[in-house]
Amino acid sequence: MQDWQPPSPEQRHALVAQARFDADGLLAAIAQDEDRNVLMLAWMNSEALDETLRTGRVCYFSRSRQRLWRKGESSGQVQHLLKAAFDCDCDALLLTVHQTGVACHTGRRSCFYQNVTPEGLQADSAPLITPTQLYGSTDPGRG
Amino acid sequence: MQDWQPPSPEQRHALVAQARFDADGLLAAIAQDEDRNVLMLAWMNSEALDETLRTGRVCYFSRSRQRLWRKGESSGQVQHLLKAAFDCDCDALLLTVHQTGVACHTGRRSCFYQNVTPEGLQADSAPLITPTQLYGSTDPGRG
Repeated sequence: MQDWQPPSPEQRHALVAQARFDADGLLAAIAQDEDRNVLMLAWMNSEALDETLRTGRVCYFSRSRQRLWRKGESSGQVQHLLKAAFDCDCDALLLTVHQTGVACHTGRRSCFYQNVTPEGLQADSAPLITPTQLYGSTDPGRG
Repeated sequence: MQDWQPPSPEQRHALVAQARFDADGLLAAIAQDEDRNVLMLAWMNSEALDETLRTGRVCYFSRSRQRLWRKGESSGQVQHLLKAAFDCDCDALLLTVHQTGVACHTGRRSCFYQNVTPEGLQADSAPLITPTQLYGSTDPGRG
């Protein structure tokens, strides 16, 4: 898949204006890798969407920290955008990304690792890297 | 992929209790087909989640209609659950489904058909079926 082809500034502004943000000013964004594994679901405000489309490096809005969250800013596990698609009513975004390392703060490739089974939730994978390796020894927040 | 193996009633109640619903009582649910195409993003309240896990037929909560939405109830385009996985903090759900026909009310297989291109949004696919075929001649809502 080829690298991200950013829209022109005019097109980018039009796209951000077309997006339907919720009452909190947020849009759900799903990140999927080149092999179509769904890695995570996070949120973007208009600034995060604009930056992502402009730079090709995925930037979310952290609801817990109430600020922009450049994925990988503390962990190094960045997401490079390959493709972006809005859904039919422009209130959700599907990102195809090249994920450096792991997407999940637990050290797993995908956040969606807790399978529903007849016996309850069961992890489908082990961490590939420890949180300490990801964030250092002090608590990091996420990302 | 084998058919849905429902959790026991006790496990199901525990799972619904573990889910972290937002201030509106909703959880984001992503539906992906067996070929890992992301079909749609929608919402579940606790009742929709409980019903989905119990029956293996996907039921969402329609935010616009403020009621349970058994996917396919008016269009016939139902989703049979194959697998469900929570993300790391239990506030989003990834469903693997067998989608009868199309997921999108526009008649496309996936709702995420509006690609961001340097020239703005461009549909990546044509409808496979018309809204009239999906819903009859009167306006249907969606589903």
